[in-house]
Amino acid sequence: MYIETKAARRFCESLFHSYGFSGSESAVITDVLLRADLYGIESHGIHRLSRYHDEITSGQVDVKARPQITHETGISAALEANKAMGQLAGVHAMNIALEKAKTSGCGMVTVRNSNHYGIASFYTEMAASLDLIGVSMTNTEAICVPTFGAQAMTGTNAIAFAMPAEPYNFSYDASTTVVPRGKLEVYKKNSQPLPDHWALDERGNPCKDAAAVIENIIAKAGGGIAPLGGMGTVHGGHKGYGLSVIVDIFTAVLSGGLTSNYVNRKTDHAGICHFFMAIDYGIFGDKISIKENLSKFLRELRESKKAEGYDRIYTHGERAQEMMAQRTNGQIPVNDKTLEEMKAIAAKQKVPFLLLP
Amino acid sequence: MYIETKAARRFCESLFHSYGFSGSESAVITDVLLRADLYGIESHGIHRLSRYHDEITSGQVDVKARPQITHETGISAALEANKAMGQLAGVHAMNIALEKAKTSGCGMVTVRNSNHYGIASFYTEMAASLDLIGVSMTNTEAICVPTFGAQAMTGTNAIAFAMPAEPYNFSYDASTTVVPRGKLEVYKKNSQPLPDHWALDERGNPCKDAAAVIENIIAKAGGGIAPLGGMGTVHGGHKGYGLSVIVDIFTAVLSGGLTSNYVNRKTDHAGICHFFMAIDYGIFGDKISIKENLSKFLRELRESKKAEGYDRIYTHGERAQEMMAQRTNGQIPVNDKTLEEMKAIAAKQKVPFLLLP
Repeated sequence: MYIETKAARRFCESLFHSYGFSGSESAVITDVLLRADLYGIESHGIHRLSRYHDEITSGQVDVKARPQITHETGISAALEANKAMGQLAGVHAMNIALEKAKTSGCGMVTVRNSNHYGIASFYTEMAASLDLIGVSMTNTEAICVPTFGAQAMTGTNAIAFAMPAEPYNFSYDASTTVVPRGKLEVYKKNSQPLPDHWALDERGNPCKDAAAVIENIIAKAGGGIAPLGGMGTVHGGHKGYGLSVIVDIFTAVLSGGLTSNYVNRKTDHAGICHFFMAIDYGIFGDKISIKENLSKFLRELRESKKAEGYDRIYTHGERAQEMMAQRTNGQIPVNDKTLEEMKAIAAKQKVPFLLLP
Repeated sequence: MYIETKAARRFCESLFHSYGFSGSESAVITDVLLRADLYGIESHGIHRLSRYHDEITSGQVDVKARPQITHETGISAALEANKAMGQLAGVHAMNIALEKAKTSGCGMVTVRNSNHYGIASFYTEMAASLDLIGVSMTNTEAICVPTFGAQAMTGTNAIAFAMPAEPYNFSYDASTTVVPRGKLEVYKKNSQPLPDHWALDERGNPCKDAAAVIENIIAKAGGGIAPLGGMGTVHGGHKGYGLSVIVDIFTAVLSGGLTSNYVNRKTDHAGICHFFMAIDYGIFGDKISIKENLSKFLRELRESKKAEGYDRIYTHGERAQEMMAQRTNGQIPVNDKTLEEMKAIAAKQKVPFLLLP
C-alpha cells in the first residue's frame, strides 16, 4: 500500500523527537531516511525504522552525542562521532567537507564511532546541489567474504559519487558486494534459492540458502556474501574484494575507527565509520564547460545502441531522480510488515499514528 | 623463455632513445614498462613494445611533446599532454600531484591528449614510496558495454589505489570490466570459448567467441566486454558500468579531453586521458598509528579463515611485490612471439639486440 509522503514525514519527525532529538535533528534524520523511499531504495527508508528504534533505545545510538573534531587542516577533518545517530554525524561531516571545498577547492572528512547513516547518496547529492562533486563511503558489519576466504571480513561498504549534470545529475551509489544484505532477505522471505555466485557457506563453498547465509552472518559463524565480481577470480571477484578494502581504508583505517570485521560486535557500540569528500571541480578548469562535458557524455551513453530486448540505457541516478519528482508531493510505498512495526513503535513512544490523509 | 631483467632494461632504453627520446626520458618509459613484467602483469610489459613502436612511428605519440599546465591551484593542475608518450605525461603529472600533496596535503592532476601509460599502479606506488596515498585512473579505447547496451562506450578504465603498509603496501590496480582485453586475446589465441558473462556480440547478446568480440571492438561494430559484475543487473553489472563512467569523469570529463567512446578514433591522435591524486594521510591524524591500522587490517584479512581447498588469502599488491623482489636482479618471462617482435623492431631501429647474457 501507499502512504502520503508528507504524513510519513510528520510521523518520523515526531517519532525521532520522542527519543530526545531536537526538532531540527529530527528533521535531518527524517530527510535522510525518507530520501531512500523517494529514490525507490525501500531497504534504507521507513522500512528501517524498527532497527533504528532498537539502536536508539538500546544505547547503541547516543541521542545526546556531539561529534568532535579530533584533527583538522584546511582541506580535511577527522570527526569522533561519539556514537551519534549516523545521519546527524553524516550531515555534519559532509557540511564540513562542503565548507572546505568552497574555500580550499576540496574537503575530506573521516568519521569514526558512528552508526548506520542511511543512503550514501544523500550526502553526495548535498554536494551536487551546491555544484560540487561529492564522494561518500561507509563501512558496516562484516558480510563480505574475501577472495579464497570463508569468513566475512568487510561490509556492504558502499561507494557513492555524484556530480552535477543536465538534465540529471550523475549519482552512483552501490555496495561493493554482488548484492546488499537486503536482497538476501527478500529471497529468504520468498524461500527462493539464491542465484549462483551470490553467497558462501561457512566453509567458503557456494550456497543458495538465503536463510542459512543470513543466520551465519548474524552469528559470525563464517560465510557471507561474495564481493562484486562473485566468488573466486574468474569474474573479477578479487576486484570487488579490493574495492571493499579501499572503503574500509577511507572510512576506518584513516579515522582510527573499527574496520568492518569489528563493527557491531558490541550491542552498545556499533562503531561504524564514514568518509566524505567534496571537490569544487572548478579547480580543473571552467565549470560550465566541464559540466557540459559530463551532460554530453551521459546523453551519449543513454542514446547508445540498446541490447536486443531492451529499449533504454540508464545513467546512474536518473531513475531515482525521476521517482523523487513524482513522490515528493505524492506517496511512498510501504509494506504491511513495516506498517505494523511503525504502529508498534508509535504505541511504545506514545506518538500519534495518523498516516492516512 | 626468460631473459635477464638488466639486459631487457638496456635494450628498452636504447630502443626508446632511437626514436628520439632523451636518455632520462627513455629510462622513465623503460621503468614503467618493465615494472609490469616485474609485477607479473605481462600484458602491459615488453609484450607491448610492438604496439608502442607503431604508435611512436605513426605519429600518435609525439616524441618531442612537452605537457603544459592549462589550469592550476594549490591542490590541483590540469595538464594538456600534447600527444606525449603516456608514461612521460603520467610520471610528470604524478610528480606534480606529489609535490602538491607534500605542501598542501593533497594534489589532483588531470591529463588529456595523452597515450597509453602502462600499468596504473606504477604511479600509485610512486606515492606509496613517499609515504602518501596514491590514486591513478586512465580511460582507453571503448571496450565496455553499458548495462542493457550493445555498443562499447567506456574503456578498460582501470582504477589504482595504493597506501603504505607493513610488510606489503596495499596496492590495488584493476580494470572496471570483468576482464581486460588482454584476457580475451589469450582465449582467442587458444581458440577457447569465453566464460559466461564476459562478452557481448554486436546485438548485445552473450558471446563466447573471443575472436569475433575483438574484431568487433576494433571495427567499432558493436558488442564488447561486460562491466565488472557481468551483463545485466543480477550480478551487479550496473555497478561496474557506473565505476567505468566514474573513471571517464575523473580522466576525460574533468580534463576536457576525449571520453573513451572517442579515444583512438583517429590514427594520429589517441586522446587518452588520465587522473592522478596523492594524499598525505597525515591530514587525518598521526601517520604512524594510521599506517599501523592498515597493516593490522591487512594482516587480519590474510589470516582470516580460508575457503575449502585454498590455503592463502592475498591482499592486493602482495603477489606483485613478492614477484618484483625476485625478478629485479633476476629474469623476466618473454614469449616467442614477443621475442620475434622485439628482434624485428631492433632491426628497424638499428638497435643491438643482445638480450642473452
